[in-house]
Amino acid sequence: MTPALPMVAPAEGLPTRVRIHEVGPRDGLQNEKSTVPTEVKAEFIHRLARAGLTTIEATSFVHPKWLPQLADAETLFPELRDLAPAVHLPVLVPNERGLDRALALGASRIAVFASATESFAKANLNRTVAESLAMFEPVVARAKDARAHVRGYLSMCFGDPWEGPVPVHQVVSVAKSLRDLGCDELSLGDTIGVATPGHVQTLLAELNEEGVPTDTIGVHFHDTYGQALANTLAALQHGVTTVDASAGGLGGCPYAKSATGNLATEDLVWMLRGLGIETGVDLGLLTDTSRWMAGHLGRPSPSRTVRALSATPQEQ
Amino acid sequence: MTPALPMVAPAEGLPTRVRIHEVGPRDGLQNEKSTVPTEVKAEFIHRLARAGLTTIEATSFVHPKWLPQLADAETLFPELRDLAPAVHLPVLVPNERGLDRALALGASRIAVFASATESFAKANLNRTVAESLAMFEPVVARAKDARAHVRGYLSMCFGDPWEGPVPVHQVVSVAKSLRDLGCDELSLGDTIGVATPGHVQTLLAELNEEGVPTDTIGVHFHDTYGQALANTLAALQHGVTTVDASAGGLGGCPYAKSATGNLATEDLVWMLRGLGIETGVDLGLLTDTSRWMAGHLGRPSPSRTVRALSATPQEQ
Repeated sequence: MTPALPMVAPAEGLPTRVRIHEVGPRDGLQNEKSTVPTEVKAEFIHRLARAGLTTIEATSFVHPKWLPQLADAETLFPELRDLAPAVHLPVLVPNERGLDRALALGASRIAVFASATESFAKANLNRTVAESLAMFEPVVARAKDARAHVRGYLSMCFGDPWEGPVPVHQVVSVAKSLRDLGCDELSLGDTIGVATPGHVQTLLAELNEEGVPTDTIGVHFHDTYGQALANTLAALQHGVTTVDASAGGLGGCPYAKSATGNLATEDLVWMLRGLGIETGVDLGLLTDTSRWMAGHLGRPSPSRTVRALSATPQEQ
Repeated sequence: MTPALPMVAPAEGLPTRVRIHEVGPRDGLQNEKSTVPTEVKAEFIHRLARAGLTTIEATSFVHPKWLPQLADAETLFPELRDLAPAVHLPVLVPNERGLDRALALGASRIAVFASATESFAKANLNRTVAESLAMFEPVVARAKDARAHVRGYLSMCFGDPWEGPVPVHQVVSVAKSLRDLGCDELSLGDTIGVATPGHVQTLLAELNEEGVPTDTIGVHFHDTYGQALANTLAALQHGVTTVDASAGGLGGCPYAKSATGNLATEDLVWMLRGLGIETGVDLGLLTDTSRWMAGHLGRPSPSRTVRALSATPQEQ
């Protein structure tokens, strides 16, 4: 009997449409202990597309040694051909070798993964920030030559497990470098989930002042301290229209142990739907998908919306 | 190594101070299957006070038959005398008999519990909305005569499990009636957690227009769909400075099964602290208290902040 959808009540100063960048199949599954079979991944992505998601990060062309969970990128990616061009299927590439593999399969949207802090650059990429940017330079340049769209992830934008709070100017500096390399879009990651709404708006304002337009910025919040949706609201109020989320709240960060899941796509869709903001997503189909995936993973979804919508028929 | 506190970054248009109305000992514990011993409740409340909470809803003087978990109100309340007057200890009273019991023990702040919908009034109070307001009339009048502060809870302000979305004018009408009875403060409850930020701001604006001042309004959000903190941010942006929360996210609603926990006080404090909004609460002491209480209840706290702060020392 619980209403399956929130009442629609728009609020002032918000965008009319938000593009959800779904990261579950890549960012979510790369953190799973057991490897999900390729055919399950392919069905997951197809189901997400049927639920209305139009940007679905499909996999990563990192060396299989580092991410065995995504070692099947070459097999998986061709299984998704029927989704193009309606659905964008960005893939993560760590270096030129990864780019070669992605382009050879016809990928038209790629992403690189940078860090705002030296500690995480060292832990995640085994390089300084400057060295990692130097590594990305030919990757982005060659991707642009191949007419691919390039997203630059920027992790640890708010706090770092080793360094604590991250100075805003430091994030802006790396963000500008990624833009200078040619990135079409940035994704600002709160990898350990410590950000709060004022911090989000401060960083966005500083990026604008330094010439990084809001329409090139996506936000990527983690729910470690329960702040992800409030931070998303703050970002929308600043004009951001691209929000990363993970179906069912899958995922976290393998190199930052205290980081729990990404913002759940369902919790995001619930808020956006209530605000009258278009996403194109069917919440019922999406929740069904996350429940189905949770069955494959053998544990319940951490998304509160998925749990609430799942509990209703049995309990009432 | 995870930073134990967020970076402070204020945002425009927010209050400088928020009063947290802590509901864990009453709203949280009344939903526990097993009864918590009186001495544990007393220590819980003392620990919450030591953590800096200055308004702690202590118990309910409802008939023990309906809430056996809080049947020890007469024994518990005198155990808290040392906390007055620095700490406000409101108690819930369902009717005149409950008021008599509360006043006899020296309670100086009481709360009544009304519903914005007929279905929930029937389910929770076995009365129509009008009948319940008639029942509260002498309760509030006599409490005011005794110079007690009166809070009026208004539940199902956004959605109702039987009726779906609740019309704003219906909520405003009952809210005005509670004000007319003499309630000093209202607490707007999203009992099943379906509200979104625009809905919150629409209701607050309509209440203002109808003569209910924002400084007499508190908000009480549930995290069923993960929306509680985003809704809180929306309420703060509208000028609300009283926010209900439950230490560790304890509680829910026994008559609305799909309702999960209250907004966790820790998650709220994390956001407010990041925003530079004063609460007087020590997050470390509060988290210790919730962890201690979770030990007594035999299950982990649902608060994401409690879990994140608890995981850090072991994992890193």
